[in-house]
Amino acid sequence: MAPRGGIDLGGTKIQAVIAGPRNSVLGQARRPTPTSGGPARVVAAIVAALNDAAREGGVEVGALQRVGVGSPGTVDPETGSVSHADNLPGWSRTYPLRQRLQEKLGVPVAVGNDVSVATEAEFRLGAGRPYQSLLSVFWGTGVGGGLILGGHTWLGRGGAGEIGHMVVKRGGARCLCGRRGCMEAYAGRAAMELKARKRHAKGEKTALIKIMHERGRTRMTSGVWARALEHEDELAIRLIDRAVKALGAGIASAINLLDVEAVIIGGGLGTRLGEPYRQRIAEAMQPHLFNDQRPPDVHLAELGDLAGAVGASLLPAPPILVAA
Amino acid sequence: MAPRGGIDLGGTKIQAVIAGPRNSVLGQARRPTPTSGGPARVVAAIVAALNDAAREGGVEVGALQRVGVGSPGTVDPETGSVSHADNLPGWSRTYPLRQRLQEKLGVPVAVGNDVSVATEAEFRLGAGRPYQSLLSVFWGTGVGGGLILGGHTWLGRGGAGEIGHMVVKRGGARCLCGRRGCMEAYAGRAAMELKARKRHAKGEKTALIKIMHERGRTRMTSGVWARALEHEDELAIRLIDRAVKALGAGIASAINLLDVEAVIIGGGLGTRLGEPYRQRIAEAMQPHLFNDQRPPDVHLAELGDLAGAVGASLLPAPPILVAA
Repeated sequence: MAPRGGIDLGGTKIQAVIAGPRNSVLGQARRPTPTSGGPARVVAAIVAALNDAAREGGVEVGALQRVGVGSPGTVDPETGSVSHADNLPGWSRTYPLRQRLQEKLGVPVAVGNDVSVATEAEFRLGAGRPYQSLLSVFWGTGVGGGLILGGHTWLGRGGAGEIGHMVVKRGGARCLCGRRGCMEAYAGRAAMELKARKRHAKGEKTALIKIMHERGRTRMTSGVWARALEHEDELAIRLIDRAVKALGAGIASAINLLDVEAVIIGGGLGTRLGEPYRQRIAEAMQPHLFNDQRPPDVHLAELGDLAGAVGASLLPAPPILVAA
Repeated sequence: MAPRGGIDLGGTKIQAVIAGPRNSVLGQARRPTPTSGGPARVVAAIVAALNDAAREGGVEVGALQRVGVGSPGTVDPETGSVSHADNLPGWSRTYPLRQRLQEKLGVPVAVGNDVSVATEAEFRLGAGRPYQSLLSVFWGTGVGGGLILGGHTWLGRGGAGEIGHMVVKRGGARCLCGRRGCMEAYAGRAAMELKARKRHAKGEKTALIKIMHERGRTRMTSGVWARALEHEDELAIRLIDRAVKALGAGIASAINLLDVEAVIIGGGLGTRLGEPYRQRIAEAMQPHLFNDQRPPDVHLAELGDLAGAVGASLLPAPPILVAA
């Protein structure tokens, strides 16, 4: 079988991999997501990233069996069009991503939801291998969730997995989605940054801003939070504690409803903070679990930053449509 | 095909039905659940209720094709044993319900979870017929949930559907389960009654106690609540409003996670309060739905009080085990 391409299309970066025999990663490359120019420039950047990865893997893009893309927004699985990709600049309307990419690449392209392809990757190749049912929690800028139920991805009517918008505190903190009390309003990195900046503006001491500047960042990345925690920065500790409690309540609620075998913690913050926080999240779930004698297994994601791109490479090729 | 028996084993009553061709109800009967004597007396009462229903239906119990029981607690689907049926007096240990009933009835017996058999009944014969995925919410003494996903009942590791113990307010009201902020702590009839009695003891005026006594009840049944609402009792209105808001947040959270097509509202309070409250619950969900442009359909359960017993009659016969 010829190698396959996989693309993880994120709000800040585009990750490309070339997957070979037994899903080994033959090549990988990363490019920043263009901040202007809309979908057309994003497509050009995807092609460039894929070319870089193919070069590293010693293969031709035109020789790939197929290319899968994990995309934010709402993906139409039949047409491969993407809408409401609000993380991507200038991409609020529906854009025919699959069609445009196929034209540029000359190979079959499949498009799936970014969180669900990463979940599928962890299920088939990562920490989820021993299980037939699991919940993945990608703890990053937002908090995304993916479900494997009875060995299959569950998408509902296409929009399942919005675990970040489960209500953990009715009437609570304002979420970036405009609602109140969502888990993401406490645990999403974007919401946490907003809160930290507000506290800082009100005169509270914190190393978060300084660390961010030292690292040449304009955003409080997962690395910035991790560093602030190492420095025992009080505000960072308090906001992370608050996030962990919200994650505990929200994930436990999902378990009370679904009773899956395992929870896989990934995402920028989940991966960066690692094992001690896996443990802390599991502990924060415990007081809210109805069957507290039999909690689910809680693991860190194993595929790390590459889960999305590797998962995208697993997407089946779309059926070939012949014009009548 | 011979008629089948169905039993809904509840904390206060045992409902029996005889189901005939095309799941028509040929006979039905109801007996109070014994409040002492443990599982053995419960088994005797089940047999009596089934005999009553069979007499009404003009059939012999011994001629039934099989009998299904929807039971509270944890049901072992293989053995038909029931444990942790804490609603039933003297039934905290594991009891071989299927075996004992088979001995008494002389026909094959299957045992399932009460909420999931009622959900299956609504899915196959009731308000859930048009859908392949749904969430049922049984709003009564507690708040139970059932899931149909992709046309099949989802039980997880056996304990799925505890929607009443999803957290809607972290650190919020104490639930009867001992935890805090569960949906049931606001919306369960038992929790609402406790709150009403406390307010009354503190001198707050309410017709709830008077209506309960007039009806010769020791508990605030769904009928008592409905009557108090008709009388525009302020405390009843406030507590029901609080319940509806909690239901809205909890059900919307479940929808954000699962994105099923429909929500079916049943249970004592759901059935008794009916259409205006179906509408109010749907409205209370709306501000918490992530995909608020495409809410799920929200229906009242159609099978009412008989959903559990009819659903139990649908349970497939267990495989016949032959001693070696």
